[in-house]
Amino acid sequence: MKALVYHGPGKKSWEDVPDPTILKPTDVIVKIDATTICGTDLHILKGDVPAVEVGRILGHEGVGTITEIGDAVASLVVGDRVIVSAVTACGRCIYCKDGVYSHCQADEGASGIGWILGHLIDGTQAEYVRVPFAETSVHKLPEGVSDAEGLLLSDILPTGHEIGVQYGRVKPGDVVAVIGAGPVGLAAMLTAGLYGPSRIIAIDLDANRVAEATKFGATDGDWKEQVLALTDGLGVDVAIEAVGIPQTFTMCLDIVRPAGTVANVGVHGTGVDLPLDTLWISNIVITMGLINANTTDMLLKMVASKKLDATPFVSHTFALDDILDAYDVFERAAETKALKVVLNA
Amino acid sequence: MKALVYHGPGKKSWEDVPDPTILKPTDVIVKIDATTICGTDLHILKGDVPAVEVGRILGHEGVGTITEIGDAVASLVVGDRVIVSAVTACGRCIYCKDGVYSHCQADEGASGIGWILGHLIDGTQAEYVRVPFAETSVHKLPEGVSDAEGLLLSDILPTGHEIGVQYGRVKPGDVVAVIGAGPVGLAAMLTAGLYGPSRIIAIDLDANRVAEATKFGATDGDWKEQVLALTDGLGVDVAIEAVGIPQTFTMCLDIVRPAGTVANVGVHGTGVDLPLDTLWISNIVITMGLINANTTDMLLKMVASKKLDATPFVSHTFALDDILDAYDVFERAAETKALKVVLNA
Amino acid sequence: MKALVYHGPGKKSWEDVPDPTILKPTDVIVKIDATTICGTDLHILKGDVPAVEVGRILGHEGVGTITEIGDAVASLVVGDRVIVSAVTACGRCIYCKDGVYSHCQADEGASGIGWILGHLIDGTQAEYVRVPFAETSVHKLPEGVSDAEGLLLSDILPTGHEIGVQYGRVKPGDVVAVIGAGPVGLAAMLTAGLYGPSRIIAIDLDANRVAEATKFGATDGDWKEQVLALTDGLGVDVAIEAVGIPQTFTMCLDIVRPAGTVANVGVHGTGVDLPLDTLWISNIVITMGLINANTTDMLLKMVASKKLDATPFVSHTFALDDILDAYDVFERAAETKALKVVLNA
Amino acid sequence: MKALVYHGPGKKSWEDVPDPTILKPTDVIVKIDATTICGTDLHILKGDVPAVEVGRILGHEGVGTITEIGDAVASLVVGDRVIVSAVTACGRCIYCKDGVYSHCQADEGASGIGWILGHLIDGTQAEYVRVPFAETSVHKLPEGVSDAEGLLLSDILPTGHEIGVQYGRVKPGDVVAVIGAGPVGLAAMLTAGLYGPSRIIAIDLDANRVAEATKFGATDGDWKEQVLALTDGLGVDVAIEAVGIPQTFTMCLDIVRPAGTVANVGVHGTGVDLPLDTLWISNIVITMGLINANTTDMLLKMVASKKLDATPFVSHTFALDDILDAYDVFERAAETKALKVVLNA
Repeated sequence: MKALVYHGPGKKSWEDVPDPTILKPTDVIVKIDATTICGTDLHILKGDVPAVEVGRILGHEGVGTITEIGDAVASLVVGDRVIVSAVTACGRCIYCKDGVYSHCQADEGASGIGWILGHLIDGTQAEYVRVPFAETSVHKLPEGVSDAEGLLLSDILPTGHEIGVQYGRVKPGDVVAVIGAGPVGLAAMLTAGLYGPSRIIAIDLDANRVAEATKFGATDGDWKEQVLALTDGLGVDVAIEAVGIPQTFTMCLDIVRPAGTVANVGVHGTGVDLPLDTLWISNIVITMGLINANTTDMLLKMVASKKLDATPFVSHTFALDDILDAYDVFERAAETKALKVVLNA
Repeated sequence: MKALVYHGPGKKSWEDVPDPTILKPTDVIVKIDATTICGTDLHILKGDVPAVEVGRILGHEGVGTITEIGDAVASLVVGDRVIVSAVTACGRCIYCKDGVYSHCQADEGASGIGWILGHLIDGTQAEYVRVPFAETSVHKLPEGVSDAEGLLLSDILPTGHEIGVQYGRVKPGDVVAVIGAGPVGLAAMLTAGLYGPSRIIAIDLDANRVAEATKFGATDGDWKEQVLALTDGLGVDVAIEAVGIPQTFTMCLDIVRPAGTVANVGVHGTGVDLPLDTLWISNIVITMGLINANTTDMLLKMVASKKLDATPFVSHTFALDDILDAYDVFERAAETKALKVVLNA
Repeated sequence: MKALVYHGPGKKSWEDVPDPTILKPTDVIVKIDATTICGTDLHILKGDVPAVEVGRILGHEGVGTITEIGDAVASLVVGDRVIVSAVTACGRCIYCKDGVYSHCQADEGASGIGWILGHLIDGTQAEYVRVPFAETSVHKLPEGVSDAEGLLLSDILPTGHEIGVQYGRVKPGDVVAVIGAGPVGLAAMLTAGLYGPSRIIAIDLDANRVAEATKFGATDGDWKEQVLALTDGLGVDVAIEAVGIPQTFTMCLDIVRPAGTVANVGVHGTGVDLPLDTLWISNIVITMGLINANTTDMLLKMVASKKLDATPFVSHTFALDDILDAYDVFERAAETKALKVVLNA
Repeated sequence: MKALVYHGPGKKSWEDVPDPTILKPTDVIVKIDATTICGTDLHILKGDVPAVEVGRILGHEGVGTITEIGDAVASLVVGDRVIVSAVTACGRCIYCKDGVYSHCQADEGASGIGWILGHLIDGTQAEYVRVPFAETSVHKLPEGVSDAEGLLLSDILPTGHEIGVQYGRVKPGDVVAVIGAGPVGLAAMLTAGLYGPSRIIAIDLDANRVAEATKFGATDGDWKEQVLALTDGLGVDVAIEAVGIPQTFTMCLDIVRPAGTVANVGVHGTGVDLPLDTLWISNIVITMGLINANTTDMLLKMVASKKLDATPFVSHTFALDDILDAYDVFERAAETKALKVVLNA
């Protein structure tokens, strides 16, 4: 089959590789119908994620059709259309029993981390992918949900929802600020609506992205004085960091009200300063983390019932064979306004 | 009356001042029966808390007897023995309605902070104190609870409980590490027992203090490898910071397991580093804050029913007139092994 | 002033009575700008609520303007437009400190119940009303919120929200059935939307009312097989009872799924059967209760920000002087299709 | 092998049957080291549970050693000592993903119920048992935990904890009444201690059992006036029903305070009256349900760390071959004072 293979920092190719096979009775093989590229894939290609070995097939998002199942797989059959979750969960370790699939302790990849596809084992930017622990790691697609909608449920929507909105403890009446109007920030804005906020404020250094954000139900925003003016002077209930740099993390601390929450979703390359000398008295909560994919089923239900519209996330569509072009467009997102690029097989 | 008055950095005196009087119908006057000194008072005396003006009577902890009540006070009468909470709550602002008394927005002190006694208005290190919003800021002492027990409920026990244990989300089966075995750390260890932990580990740079901690139900502990060895190698469920320096905050980050909680109780004088480049994927929660005193009634119930024994906190007892001696002993805590010094009127 | 006075079962009159006066420093006097009639008032007039004494002014809902304040009232001034809550809360008893204002233990009415207006003390169907514990029992109306919108926040919206939706534990993705499409059922449907349900099913014996319900965001519904067909055969996540008779309570038990919730909002005149022989194994939760009015501020924020539209609740408008006509229309609701009748002063 | 076989109402025998074999790759075979008899087994033998077919091996509690594993079982090996949970969980259906294993929807038994052992498939009162979905249905025993301790974690301790204490929402400071001092009531009393109650009151019609209860950390109790006298006159925070008859359920309603919780643990043979005409205003919560076994790991941790002492539950010990004698003793519990009878292989 064809697959997108990592060959060390700066090097990738779309090349022939052997088809995956069932290795364990709990595996399935999925023929990829649609996949996409994540910002994390760009980090890998820069060499920032040393755990990724040369020769690895990238990609942790995908929608496809099951072509083969292991002997122990009872609730899935060949032909099922499924979402492949970014996080692979064994469903039986101490973390999985608590629904914290992000820290699955199973031995696939031997890492104590649920994100293994396109990281510690071969991923979804390929014609076929082996999915371990399939019954707890894929989600059947109901009729009426498109490949593109399903694809957004692999990672981006549950990440925005779980790490931004749920960890941020958004509740009815809250004012929520989201800093960073890229895909994951937009996912947080969209899914925050499930919790009855009175206002969602989109903040980005790029005015175009804020304009884009209004398509997702966010009212527009500006900086600190304006934010405080919108919130009785005390600040927002929830500030969601969706960029991943020190400046935007500090911006969250600057606008969160006493007893509010800062939910970090951004992937950071350096540490940040935490001014505990002023914050120790503030009763705020700071959260962070990797997607658990424990709300994927719920979000899928909302998408299927047309209560959540994920389609505006798709900015570009390519054939899977043109994945190198898709990478090019996605790498130049500021210029191409790429959000999510869909690759159809 | 006599009172301990702040005269600027490094200067204090036990001197004659006018008696307090009822200023608002919701006030009461309390004759102090017992008071104590808090680490924060030492910070004030160093000049670290500029909001405290020269001439201010210090102290935010006390037990006493009501001698006068305002016209609007319906549920308290002259003669009631009460705990004076460190936090003064109006009971009607948006924060108080949520039980977040730490950020009471009432105009006493005009600060948006519930800690006003011995800070923005005159405090409890005196023969009498005026307590605003008395019906939501004092707690009647039942018979059988001593002054010393009540005094520990002004601040130290609820702080350890609310900011350490509750914010730390301690739950049955958890392994809890408390870094810092001073009064507030010990209060966290003691009240953590209300939530069924499987193990409480006391960590301190001072071995004497760890030994002392075992009186409070904590098993002794040691440093990182030992901690991990006690916890399946993944770390503790909850790490409580009860010192207030960067080193001990970092220690908490080093031993908390994925999806665990770091609850900061320490008062910090500088900022700390937060290595988000490694932590963004860890699903931990970091909390901090000032006492709300919204669990004082519950803790009082537990003390009254002899389920919590607060008495080991009292290391020294003085007459109120000897408060300058008490300050001397408390300032040299490392040497005198002072925990809480009780001053009886 | 004029007031609607109860003269025993079946007897009421709109008559001259003395103006209310400040009795305690925490009282305010409110000039009523708008009031309404509740189903409970009809129960009282039938003689079903023996605690209501002859001579009592009825009514527990109202919007008005403060004309006088007690000496202890600090956060309200003469001229403030306010919502008078159905529940009067002292803000300082053990129940109020927990936000369970429904069971305020203060001595007004000496009953351990927060509903005292038009019940144990004179109510809001009058030109003026005395409101005890005003700072914790009225809510300032921001500009831009009409009297009619404010009036719906006295009781009906918070009741549907707190006792139906919150007690019902509605969460994102849930299928919610509301049995009874009268005012309180409609309030539950409207406010359920704050919690991201995937579907709201309106059920009523009266098809007209179901049609009406669709105005409030509820999709239409039918009976048991249809309900199960909409929910994978297992039943709804939350069933809200908003009628108050045994038949509709049983209907809720019949359609709730294992581990779901039945939230009773209806006022019942008789007991019901609870088939624990089949339900003991079902892991369901059954809730019930009187409004706490602890979410009124949040709902007001949502109404003020135009995220909740309460106006469809108003079916009829009268002058306050025509209150007897309004009673007549409201008593014949099945015929007149009355939901809430607004009485403007 | 030998097994206890049900032959219709009133008929059972200890007889030779074929050994169980692996049927699915997720199964294991466990050699029983210890088993016990549950009150439910007596119900089955009376013919009260028609789903149990003639020829069924009874028993849903057990501790044993794995002798064979299916091909898909990765985290267990032959020789592991395990607890067999009363509830069998597939770990991948919608209920299992929420941790509500009691309503596992897997096809074993095709019932939508997690309790299948000794009910819909052959059980643990035998020399060997097949356990489906083993990785999510058995719990490895650490060294130092005895067979008897493990056996109590199959059902009785998690049932008291989950359905009594957790569903009852016991929190620090609460007064908890447990009606019924049999095994499950005692398990509730014991595990309530993990949540910091200020008092646990044991109530039983049999004074001996109350005396017995004091061994488990419960203070003794008496009836209604005494209960109210112990609780400021308003009633208990949590009333746990652990008998299963209408009288004791009503007793719970009579003593629960406004906004408290009634947690039903008893298995009921008839319906009960629910006086909603008085309770609709009470803001109480009523819960019920079958064990989820989602806290077994936590309870095992507490037993292993000697924080919970389960051994007083064991009243009698027999050899497995003497199971008919054990049934006789257990059936005459009032006379023999049997709590849990342990059968050692």
